[in-house]
Amino acid sequence: MRRVLVTGASGFIGRNALAPLIARGYEVHAVSWDGERPAANGVAWYRTDLLEPEAVARLMAAVKPSHLLHFAWYAAPGKYQASEENLRWCRAGIDLIAEFAKAGGRRAVFAGSCFEYDLRHGYCSEAITPCAPATRYGVCKLSLGQIVTKCPPEGMSTAWGRIFYLYGPEEAASRLAASVIVALLKGERARCSHGRQVRDFMHVGDVADAFVAILDSDVRGVVNIGSGEPVTVRSIVERIADVMDARGRVEFGAIEAAAGDPAIVLADISRLRDEVGWAPRMGLDEGIAETVRWWRAKLRIS
Amino acid sequence: MRRVLVTGASGFIGRNALAPLIARGYEVHAVSWDGERPAANGVAWYRTDLLEPEAVARLMAAVKPSHLLHFAWYAAPGKYQASEENLRWCRAGIDLIAEFAKAGGRRAVFAGSCFEYDLRHGYCSEAITPCAPATRYGVCKLSLGQIVTKCPPEGMSTAWGRIFYLYGPEEAASRLAASVIVALLKGERARCSHGRQVRDFMHVGDVADAFVAILDSDVRGVVNIGSGEPVTVRSIVERIADVMDARGRVEFGAIEAAAGDPAIVLADISRLRDEVGWAPRMGLDEGIAETVRWWRAKLRIS
Repeated sequence: MRRVLVTGASGFIGRNALAPLIARGYEVHAVSWDGERPAANGVAWYRTDLLEPEAVARLMAAVKPSHLLHFAWYAAPGKYQASEENLRWCRAGIDLIAEFAKAGGRRAVFAGSCFEYDLRHGYCSEAITPCAPATRYGVCKLSLGQIVTKCPPEGMSTAWGRIFYLYGPEEAASRLAASVIVALLKGERARCSHGRQVRDFMHVGDVADAFVAILDSDVRGVVNIGSGEPVTVRSIVERIADVMDARGRVEFGAIEAAAGDPAIVLADISRLRDEVGWAPRMGLDEGIAETVRWWRAKLRIS
Repeated sequence: MRRVLVTGASGFIGRNALAPLIARGYEVHAVSWDGERPAANGVAWYRTDLLEPEAVARLMAAVKPSHLLHFAWYAAPGKYQASEENLRWCRAGIDLIAEFAKAGGRRAVFAGSCFEYDLRHGYCSEAITPCAPATRYGVCKLSLGQIVTKCPPEGMSTAWGRIFYLYGPEEAASRLAASVIVALLKGERARCSHGRQVRDFMHVGDVADAFVAILDSDVRGVVNIGSGEPVTVRSIVERIADVMDARGRVEFGAIEAAAGDPAIVLADISRLRDEVGWAPRMGLDEGIAETVRWWRAKLRIS
């Protein structure tokens, strides 16, 4: 029997992993910090503070999962990159994998980040691109990732999925795609930077499905989770505006790009495609249209 | 007032750091896990299990140190490189620096290791030699070191001393120099590998003094702690045998070298010498003679 414990299960990615796990036949046990429980059939929910070592030990002993999918981390928009909370989440990740091993766990996949790479390289390949994170978030993800992939507890199979850029329904309203959609839906102007940044954007449903595919494989080590398709921030914003017929309200160059904002962040997805055997299903046009519909319904704007 | 908390203070290096700290005017608070308390004047001792998060918090709140010198780690000879205990000590290090910050700590130096480097490079330089540890010990030290040096709590100054090879009185009897000395003192044969391995050996008293010098400086980041002088294992063993007039009882090639044993492990010590302004005081001949005398007294062999 395959019994998976999903952390961060009420979060942006985690909530999208529940249905694919059930579809693949997992018995799903989901952890939510804040008690929020997205609709999902047949999921057992737990409210646990993973920063408390004893709570982690109790949870693992109660669930005895064979599989672990760890999304939980500090993720407050605008604050998560620099926060000292990252140190606590790195520490919690070590607790989690140790207690998972004690409970008999066999296969674990953790969420990492493109911010572990030295992003001056732009095109990021697991085997050859040097890591040199510029923020507390990147450093703490990299440190935990090394432990998880290079020296997990004996007999455990592990992988580390590095997330690139993503968008989709239920994104925090202050993040790129969501902020542009919300501004334009409210009839406001969308003030953007120059927009020439090249990024790797993937729909959150595909990101979550890729994690489940990796968990369900025997691929070990670091795996980039991206589309492999370069798009400019400008083209993302223009697609959003086109769906709403609002190009005239987009102002490129109205704000400064963040200091040190990399020119290119693009995933080499050959491991994900060839070793995991996975490909994204949602195209950018379709995904953006769906995301705009979701925000329209949420804000009750017709 | 400069008040230092020393962890692992009854260990091989830690016990040698106490006198240099007192000599530089620090108020010394020392943590011992097992209750062993090496002789040292004016040191306040604490018996604390640093793997217990609440014990760490209580200790820091009670001592309120301005400085931290962290040596404690799992170090059982023959077992420490592969042990899963390394994960727990990495986690404990994150707890320690966070609680040190909460208690008002300003300057911390942690013990790292040459085993963090990709040792195929042989000559190890902080700024350019890639890290690619081959063991749980190396991975967990590297991960903690990244956090300590690249994203410490706000306002804290940190350094990470990478220890190379060392020897001296009170070394664990199964480690290289000690095992040869003990065998020859007992009148037995010393069975060695080929002995062609080039290493960077430093007396434990100098290693401890270098850590204190780094703590007392404002040098940040990774600093190699070594002599910078290459010696073969064969020459170390022959010097020991010469002190005891026992060359005839040394057998090189009697045992296999460990699998993956690197040909060369040598420190680039320019940061330690030029930025910290520190140099070793104990030469190899003098240090080995002193170590043999210590074992002779301990084993009561004249």
